[in-house]
Amino acid sequence: MEINTTIQSIEKLVQEAQSAFPVLKNKNIKERAALMHLIADEIEALGEELTKTTSEETNLPLARLQGEQARTVFQWRSYADGLAAGTALPVRIDTAAPDRNPPKPDLRKSYVPLGIVVVFGASNFPYAYSTAGGDTASAIAAGCPVIVKAHPAHPRTSAIMGQAIARGIRKAGLPSGVFGQVFSDGFEAGNFLVSHPLVKAVGFTGSLTGGKALFDLAARRQEPIPVFAEMGSVNPVFLLPGKLKSSGEELAGQYIASLTLGVGQFCTNPGVLMVPENEYLPDFIGALREALQKIAPVPMLHQGIANNYQKNKQRIIGQVGVELIASVAPGEKIQGNPALVKVKAQNFLSNDVLAEEVFGPFGILVTYSDQQELLAVARKFNGQLTASLLVNDEELGQYGELVDILTTKCGRILHNGFPTGVEVAYAMQHGGPFPASTDSRFSAVGPDAIQRFARPISYQNWSDEWLPDELKNSNPLDIWRTINTEYTKEPI
Amino acid sequence: MEINTTIQSIEKLVQEAQSAFPVLKNKNIKERAALMHLIADEIEALGEELTKTTSEETNLPLARLQGEQARTVFQWRSYADGLAAGTALPVRIDTAAPDRNPPKPDLRKSYVPLGIVVVFGASNFPYAYSTAGGDTASAIAAGCPVIVKAHPAHPRTSAIMGQAIARGIRKAGLPSGVFGQVFSDGFEAGNFLVSHPLVKAVGFTGSLTGGKALFDLAARRQEPIPVFAEMGSVNPVFLLPGKLKSSGEELAGQYIASLTLGVGQFCTNPGVLMVPENEYLPDFIGALREALQKIAPVPMLHQGIANNYQKNKQRIIGQVGVELIASVAPGEKIQGNPALVKVKAQNFLSNDVLAEEVFGPFGILVTYSDQQELLAVARKFNGQLTASLLVNDEELGQYGELVDILTTKCGRILHNGFPTGVEVAYAMQHGGPFPASTDSRFSAVGPDAIQRFARPISYQNWSDEWLPDELKNSNPLDIWRTINTEYTKEPI
Repeated sequence: MEINTTIQSIEKLVQEAQSAFPVLKNKNIKERAALMHLIADEIEALGEELTKTTSEETNLPLARLQGEQARTVFQWRSYADGLAAGTALPVRIDTAAPDRNPPKPDLRKSYVPLGIVVVFGASNFPYAYSTAGGDTASAIAAGCPVIVKAHPAHPRTSAIMGQAIARGIRKAGLPSGVFGQVFSDGFEAGNFLVSHPLVKAVGFTGSLTGGKALFDLAARRQEPIPVFAEMGSVNPVFLLPGKLKSSGEELAGQYIASLTLGVGQFCTNPGVLMVPENEYLPDFIGALREALQKIAPVPMLHQGIANNYQKNKQRIIGQVGVELIASVAPGEKIQGNPALVKVKAQNFLSNDVLAEEVFGPFGILVTYSDQQELLAVARKFNGQLTASLLVNDEELGQYGELVDILTTKCGRILHNGFPTGVEVAYAMQHGGPFPASTDSRFSAVGPDAIQRFARPISYQNWSDEWLPDELKNSNPLDIWRTINTEYTKEPI
Repeated sequence: MEINTTIQSIEKLVQEAQSAFPVLKNKNIKERAALMHLIADEIEALGEELTKTTSEETNLPLARLQGEQARTVFQWRSYADGLAAGTALPVRIDTAAPDRNPPKPDLRKSYVPLGIVVVFGASNFPYAYSTAGGDTASAIAAGCPVIVKAHPAHPRTSAIMGQAIARGIRKAGLPSGVFGQVFSDGFEAGNFLVSHPLVKAVGFTGSLTGGKALFDLAARRQEPIPVFAEMGSVNPVFLLPGKLKSSGEELAGQYIASLTLGVGQFCTNPGVLMVPENEYLPDFIGALREALQKIAPVPMLHQGIANNYQKNKQRIIGQVGVELIASVAPGEKIQGNPALVKVKAQNFLSNDVLAEEVFGPFGILVTYSDQQELLAVARKFNGQLTASLLVNDEELGQYGELVDILTTKCGRILHNGFPTGVEVAYAMQHGGPFPASTDSRFSAVGPDAIQRFARPISYQNWSDEWLPDELKNSNPLDIWRTINTEYTKEPI
């Protein structure tokens, strides 16, 4: 493992990836799915060496890492199955109408991979959103060779994962250029890759600053390329008065559990909680305080994240009208000691700093006096990955406008739940309006994530023999297809 | 009709569009489809006033305009039907698994419109890609209010079409802000709109220069927004030796017909024809010359296009190795007199100017000596809307690599056909890698074009009563949905 891959070595990886491209591109969806299952098997087979190494590198506990390993395996397998079923990249066929005037051609639409994809992994999910994470799985599913810029916070983990992927590729009999990995703790390697003419798309999970810089770089290229950056969010939670009254204590515990899960190091961490100013609020705050103070300070991923957490937290605490209502005493260094503050909606509305993400177990209670103030705060939010409503059935009818506003702000809207925990499923949308992500029309999680790295292509009047398998009359891959206006698995 | 809409009036249109947004957004897909059918009826009902006005403004003949009017009506109706069937914006439902550890939530993914869409119409399709064209139909289908920047080459046509759309909106009982139109012959109005914080997406059909300028402007915004620019192409046609031998004369006539259709003013005009250097070539060129010389010069759309045509044509003719093989004598001013030139592949490969689009009835024959040279030219092309192969069944097997290269270059690949004529269908992909378009993952034609202007949203654990109609258990809209892994119209 090189500590810093040289530019010369990176160029070699790009050339190898480009040589592998036509080979991978011409594997049909069943063959690519088989490759993905081989890679999944390799990741699953990684034993304690993996989780122990990662725990040393990230301070994440073994149980969490075992769970994340299983999730990562599930991502590869479920994306493979969605691909193989024809569901993830939906095929369209319009049959010819030669007697129409003018004659209607036979048109069949499938997909081609974009080309080499560069993936920037995240530090907070060393498996599920890193070297072998959803971006890599999606891109390979689409038929794109991948070059990962390994996250410098867990290089040994990245190397182990990269080797597992390479073994899967070898077992599938595919060229090693299908996957490459670059190690670097500076920006030069990433910038070189994103600027490279043979690179055709980028996946990124991380900060707004990092994601936006790559987006700008990619947009300024002679041939602009898409950047799918998932850049986090404050994930506002809206607690309505009836629900506070009926379930305040229970929700206090659930909120603190969600806020502090994984030391708050999730992009779906619920950083802002809207609460009504009424007679039930003091007890609710008491319950929050009690729940928070039971949370032991736990080490964060690395020193840089811990430093930023403390700095950003202090910055919020120093704003006008912000009152600290609960905190856990700091432990050893790099520990993420949770804290909770309170501020009135009027202060929140007039101070943009309060709506900025603090990455870590830090929550802001924003107290609202009436529905108008609640709506004003809802309107103020930028694009979000998620928004959550805590609400009684009886009162929801009065808050239609709130729901309506939130649907324009987020990619996922939760009813009586907290946003941590991102299910890997077809119906998941992980991504929201800017700045939550750079392209809200695609999800970073679930089989539909494959669509980011493929583009449609229409075959006009080709005979059956020369069509890709997924478009042939007999439907030899037994996939779902739209034929004229209907979905079917039937042959033509 | 204002000749130049003031910035103050444009701001008012934006505010009206924003007020209309929540109203349109909350109409379900069936209601939006009904609106689109009302608009289609209004466009269909426009009589000779429309076509005569347009013919005066564009020099296009009445028969062509009547055909384009019918096509435009079909676009509104077929996109409406695709929307109402649930096919154009495919819904995904994953049902809950409460017994799983951790419990799997109920997730249902539908779509929300992006917000106000600004559409820049094209001059060459005054109906189908202009005020009431595919971008406007797609955006309204998605639930987005639209503001059109009318093309200055046909302002009276744009006004008539805008009034028809407005009547449809009024008959549907929707606010007038659903559609607005701006008239301007400068850049200020368009730049103001694309920079406006309330505008969330842009559709454009026109030149590379114009499309790229809007793309850059949109990428530099504080909140970047997507620009779907369809910017044209040289649409290379590859004639293979066996086919030249068997069908040269017939193909010569068909090529000239496609090249000169509509005075060559189509984004799918086949500007480059690859031909083998062999004993059949002289007869083929003779047939091309004969066919071309039968084409009468016809006025182009406007003086600016005619001036550019003559200038760009002369520029190509002046390049090293370019030989004029046929041309039609110029007629009156602004006429697009067709011309055909020939150049060797080695010249084409070493001179980027020869691969630039000449908008009009101008073709370049590129002669290749062997398959290696043919492949080298294929590799040289930038992103294209289309690529076409003219080939015999017996020889296609030897040209697998050519097909493979072309699938990485274009959005539509034709077998034994010419690219003019863009079928409005699900399986149509109209859009290709940059610079053919700015986002190759979406089509500008067919019901799937609606996907450009909507983004997915997941509802997590919402009760049936509060879900949008398309996600309710009973499937009240009777649409196709993915439930877990299968497509079905069944209820849950």
